[in-house]
Amino acid sequence: MKTNPGRFFEDYTLGEVISHAVPRTLSGGERAAYHALYPARHALHSSDEFARACGLPAAPFDDLVAFHTVFGKTVPDISLNAVANLGYAEGRWLKPVWPGDTIRSESTVIGLKQNSNGRSGVVYVRTRGLNQSGEPVLEYVRWVMVRKRDLDVPAPAPVVPELKDFVPASSISVPEGLDFSNYDFTLAGEPHRWGDYAVGERIDHVDGVTVEEAEHMLATRLWQNTAKVHFDRTQREDGKRLIYGGHVISLARALSFNGLANAQMIVALNAGAHANPCFAGDTVRAWSEVLDKAETGAPGVGALRLRLVAVKDGAAPFTLKDEAGKYSPEVLLDLDYWALMPL
Amino acid sequence: MKTNPGRFFEDYTLGEVISHAVPRTLSGGERAAYHALYPARHALHSSDEFARACGLPAAPFDDLVAFHTVFGKTVPDISLNAVANLGYAEGRWLKPVWPGDTIRSESTVIGLKQNSNGRSGVVYVRTRGLNQSGEPVLEYVRWVMVRKRDLDVPAPAPVVPELKDFVPASSISVPEGLDFSNYDFTLAGEPHRWGDYAVGERIDHVDGVTVEEAEHMLATRLWQNTAKVHFDRTQREDGKRLIYGGHVISLARALSFNGLANAQMIVALNAGAHANPCFAGDTVRAWSEVLDKAETGAPGVGALRLRLVAVKDGAAPFTLKDEAGKYSPEVLLDLDYWALMPL
Amino acid sequence: MKTNPGRFFEDYTLGEVISHAVPRTLSGGERAAYHALYPARHALHSSDEFARACGLPAAPFDDLVAFHTVFGKTVPDISLNAVANLGYAEGRWLKPVWPGDTIRSESTVIGLKQNSNGRSGVVYVRTRGLNQSGEPVLEYVRWVMVRKRDLDVPAPAPVVPELKDFVPASSISVPEGLDFSNYDFTLAGEPHRWGDYAVGERIDHVDGVTVEEAEHMLATRLWQNTAKVHFDRTQREDGKRLIYGGHVISLARALSFNGLANAQMIVALNAGAHANPCFAGDTVRAWSEVLDKAETGAPGVGALRLRLVAVKDGAAPFTLKDEAGKYSPEVLLDLDYWALMPL
Repeated sequence: MKTNPGRFFEDYTLGEVISHAVPRTLSGGERAAYHALYPARHALHSSDEFARACGLPAAPFDDLVAFHTVFGKTVPDISLNAVANLGYAEGRWLKPVWPGDTIRSESTVIGLKQNSNGRSGVVYVRTRGLNQSGEPVLEYVRWVMVRKRDLDVPAPAPVVPELKDFVPASSISVPEGLDFSNYDFTLAGEPHRWGDYAVGERIDHVDGVTVEEAEHMLATRLWQNTAKVHFDRTQREDGKRLIYGGHVISLARALSFNGLANAQMIVALNAGAHANPCFAGDTVRAWSEVLDKAETGAPGVGALRLRLVAVKDGAAPFTLKDEAGKYSPEVLLDLDYWALMPL
Repeated sequence: MKTNPGRFFEDYTLGEVISHAVPRTLSGGERAAYHALYPARHALHSSDEFARACGLPAAPFDDLVAFHTVFGKTVPDISLNAVANLGYAEGRWLKPVWPGDTIRSESTVIGLKQNSNGRSGVVYVRTRGLNQSGEPVLEYVRWVMVRKRDLDVPAPAPVVPELKDFVPASSISVPEGLDFSNYDFTLAGEPHRWGDYAVGERIDHVDGVTVEEAEHMLATRLWQNTAKVHFDRTQREDGKRLIYGGHVISLARALSFNGLANAQMIVALNAGAHANPCFAGDTVRAWSEVLDKAETGAPGVGALRLRLVAVKDGAAPFTLKDEAGKYSPEVLLDLDYWALMPL
Repeated sequence: MKTNPGRFFEDYTLGEVISHAVPRTLSGGERAAYHALYPARHALHSSDEFARACGLPAAPFDDLVAFHTVFGKTVPDISLNAVANLGYAEGRWLKPVWPGDTIRSESTVIGLKQNSNGRSGVVYVRTRGLNQSGEPVLEYVRWVMVRKRDLDVPAPAPVVPELKDFVPASSISVPEGLDFSNYDFTLAGEPHRWGDYAVGERIDHVDGVTVEEAEHMLATRLWQNTAKVHFDRTQREDGKRLIYGGHVISLARALSFNGLANAQMIVALNAGAHANPCFAGDTVRAWSEVLDKAETGAPGVGALRLRLVAVKDGAAPFTLKDEAGKYSPEVLLDLDYWALMPL
């Protein structure tokens, strides 16, 4: 058979390195498409002039463009037969991605654990995105539940990697040259600086976006993500196309501009849960909570650790979990990340 | 509160200058997106070679790309709480915008007049778009009706700016170097030159476009326009998303290619009314009327003053107003502009 | 009348050359848009680095970008009043198209044959796409059935051009410098090389895409295709917008990556039939059959002649024609082309 059936649980070996296919050269075209798809307004990613005033040679891509590009390449090898995308950890952006860069991805299998039912198992991979010079631009750990094709294959010795609860501030990589000493708060859109945010503070980002089928498919294809459930309405019994979780991440991040306009760059992904599926017709909103704060050593550059929660229609303000600790049905995303902000 | 609630009528002061946030670097990506969103075919904006043959260094962006980019930046400060977008005047394109340019906007409050009901007022601003060298690329006056938050704040002294009924031909700015002496009518798509149009002539542009939700949201986001009513179906009681008026302007202008293919550049906006709201599912058509003609002094370059009217399903040819002088319900847009055309 | 009513059958003269309007400069923006619109993953068109490793200076546009751009320009002159798009033949890609290139089109009328009912006739044109240096990048023959406006105009002497059943392998143009000697099958996404495909072999490409109105209109506009039926739901009695046949070609070609990832470049179009109309809501799938194989003389470069069939919901595997030799109602496209693949 010439087509790719995707890998099943028994096809993964601990320690193996998977080189993902189809490198991608990004240009101003992807930047424009990102602006059309998401209400993204962070000035550092929107304006070459603003980025230069912050010590960078030009505006890098939104950090989630790097994430989606790297992630999309892993889908045919990692999650084509995934039953669930279980989590993220230890995500670090290591170098900005610029128009003209060519990105490819590779993943190392760092954990395998068959489920007790014998029908599926959890695969842990550490994925790295690399640019045309072979420099890593992003790395993260992700684990997914994958079906077995042949239930008779014996279970591998269970290995669950030890993962950090969150990326320590000391491990954050600040882009070379970044300097917020002369940061223009007016051009950036809000006056609130790092010192104005308090741990525990919560922000309702107010705005909402009602999602259309065409939009999430355009977005998901843009990153060459091939998971069938996003594009083919015959894949699910209810005839609905499941929206790529990353689409919700980008929507929520862009909506968070309103209240976090100066959280210019995402530098670490501590954890993330796609709490409930998102479908076309849902109106997506977002709220954030400040989880931690740190200085970075770079001139004028502080870091905020933020929880970003995406919810849909009907969610009360700051909805998250019910009394039993389960995500409320209106919660779509619970993301924990570090962002850079002027001191 | 960290989020932007938008300004209310009492928050504006006569003479104040508002620097709008989030500068934007434009590239070939925005040009491609514009072509995907609108049936735009004017050769000067489509082909570097054609533009060079007309004396320009390359194809500038469609003039409405400049307009939307400049306009979008003003929304969070000017029209987030606007009840109505009342009018435009004295709009002039001063310099083409090219791929690689970074655009920002600023507005001066030039008029304020509280309504007699005491609940809202009219705010007049003169907005300028500036490129990375600080050169103005576009300016226009716009007035909007804005709600008051605190009805007890006393009304300001009413100031209504004196605005020209239209931009006189002598004030039109012709792009440096523009020369239509060797204009290629075959490549441009139509043989009709400036001399072939008569004042009073009306043109039915024939073609129509049925609009989808995804399209107008992609377009409106592309310009970083944040008005909630365009994206969030919970904002209106009828559950409809209101289409950004500028989307209708671009649709109508692009449709007007068929009959005005040689009206290559928009150089002035004399007046404009969004006569009725546009919603997804509407089929938009357009017709034009020649209002005036002028020479410009630039080699081979004439100017036509045009009325551009967008209508929707069911409109009879050349529908505009009823006997009482009120816009017919099928009329979406009534725009008065100057365009450059080969003599 | 200033608008273009399109040409009718009696408006064509044998041997006349029609220069089509609106040249187009393409950039990274069109490439990004193509990736958003189609699940295109062929590495040679996705990555500058991959293309360089194959001897090219950078990644050329997907060959169908060239096709759609050239085709779109012909619509106002050739198919605005076409009743049916009857066929393609003798299509050859002659030179890659790169970001920055400006493309225009011209067509020569090579055949005319009035139908026996006297109400329409078949027009045969040979269309060439040319870049800014006047070099041909693509040529193909297409024939369409066009209505007569004036039934009293006498029929022209019938001329039906002699067309090759398919482009012989010896006529294929391999891009200058192309060298698959050091081809990276891992980065390309599949291990199957030219020698692994057998004449007669059929491949079910497995994946499907449910098409939305917004998507096909964005795509069709991107190529400045102006045919009314794609955009205006009032054009057909059933209120449906007919999807541009080229949209189905690009969808099917992109879906064929899964099983033909190494069929990197389309170099010839032997024949093509839009068997049944496609509408929004259809879920499009594809299958291929290997029709022939040839070597090309270029280092490491072989050619496969492929039948690419697009079908919609409900089609059994490898559905094509019924017993009477008529296309089954689920078949949307039957395309015959040559592609280059590493030996």
